[in-house]
Amino acid sequence: MNFCSQCGKPVTQRIPEGDARLRHVCEHCQTIHYQNPNIVAGTVPVWGEQVLLCRRAIEPRLGYWTLPAGFMENGETVEQAAVRETLEEACARVRDLNIYTLIDVPHISQVHIFYRAELIDLDFQPGIESLEVQLFDEADIPWSELAFRTVGRTLECFFADRRQQVFPVRSESVPPLTQPAK
Amino acid sequence: MNFCSQCGKPVTQRIPEGDARLRHVCEHCQTIHYQNPNIVAGTVPVWGEQVLLCRRAIEPRLGYWTLPAGFMENGETVEQAAVRETLEEACARVRDLNIYTLIDVPHISQVHIFYRAELIDLDFQPGIESLEVQLFDEADIPWSELAFRTVGRTLECFFADRRQQVFPVRSESVPPLTQPAK
Repeated sequence: MNFCSQCGKPVTQRIPEGDARLRHVCEHCQTIHYQNPNIVAGTVPVWGEQVLLCRRAIEPRLGYWTLPAGFMENGETVEQAAVRETLEEACARVRDLNIYTLIDVPHISQVHIFYRAELIDLDFQPGIESLEVQLFDEADIPWSELAFRTVGRTLECFFADRRQQVFPVRSESVPPLTQPAK
Repeated sequence: MNFCSQCGKPVTQRIPEGDARLRHVCEHCQTIHYQNPNIVAGTVPVWGEQVLLCRRAIEPRLGYWTLPAGFMENGETVEQAAVRETLEEACARVRDLNIYTLIDVPHISQVHIFYRAELIDLDFQPGIESLEVQLFDEADIPWSELAFRTVGRTLECFFADRRQQVFPVRSESVPPLTQPAK
């Protein structure tokens, strides 16, 4: 951020009075520009024993497999965001959503929230952000080709919990990726 | 938003190519300025049979009672945000957090997330944003003087669930307040 989105003058970075954090502040119109984490909402779309995954047609992680998920928008609920993203990425309709994992990714200021969901029918196909969309049995999940760790962790929990038929809501976080040694 | 925070030129509102929503777009540097919901994180701080509430020293809802809660910041987890807000508003330290309610407030693009938590000691006092901080038995909760509906709903669930000694994670939403008839 270089300029004030209110008045267009350059912003400075300082800790406002009564605050404890560095903010972008406009000294001209006094606006404090807060920046806050984003929610990524998605589903685990289930059909019998199988789970629906999408292969990404866009960066980041183009070509890797993901659960349908994306940024929550203003004016919607987390669950509505998850349903919308499932429709946009997999052209798939889901019902009976249950909140399942809430996974913090603090180093990129995101919170990923996944719902378990039932596919309504098999009438799915790749949305504009997907190369392909496919149902997977647990044994066929492409673990080494998953796009994001929150997706892998959610699937891992899902298959483990399914064996017990108990799906506790899971709240956890993932640490920053360490750089591979050269 | 009137000006581009990247380059300082005026922004326009339009639906970018491949998008479905109206965004603030800079036609000069091509930046699309997304706006997304914010997370408010807080705790239900418990001491024996009692719950700790704070009376707000700031707007909105100055003078009304609330659970300690506030905007999640970049770089932290939701749980860290809840612990920090409890310390800032009530100077209270909590442990053994368990995620409890996730309540969407879509008309103001917020998601409120509360954790059940144990107070570590009775060494609490009003933080800078609180007028007073007090432990309440269920019978003494000032229901008609609560600051926010998400706080009332979380307390209502908490006392109901406590009778069963089972605390399922609750995911729900609150509708817009209707204007009172004149």
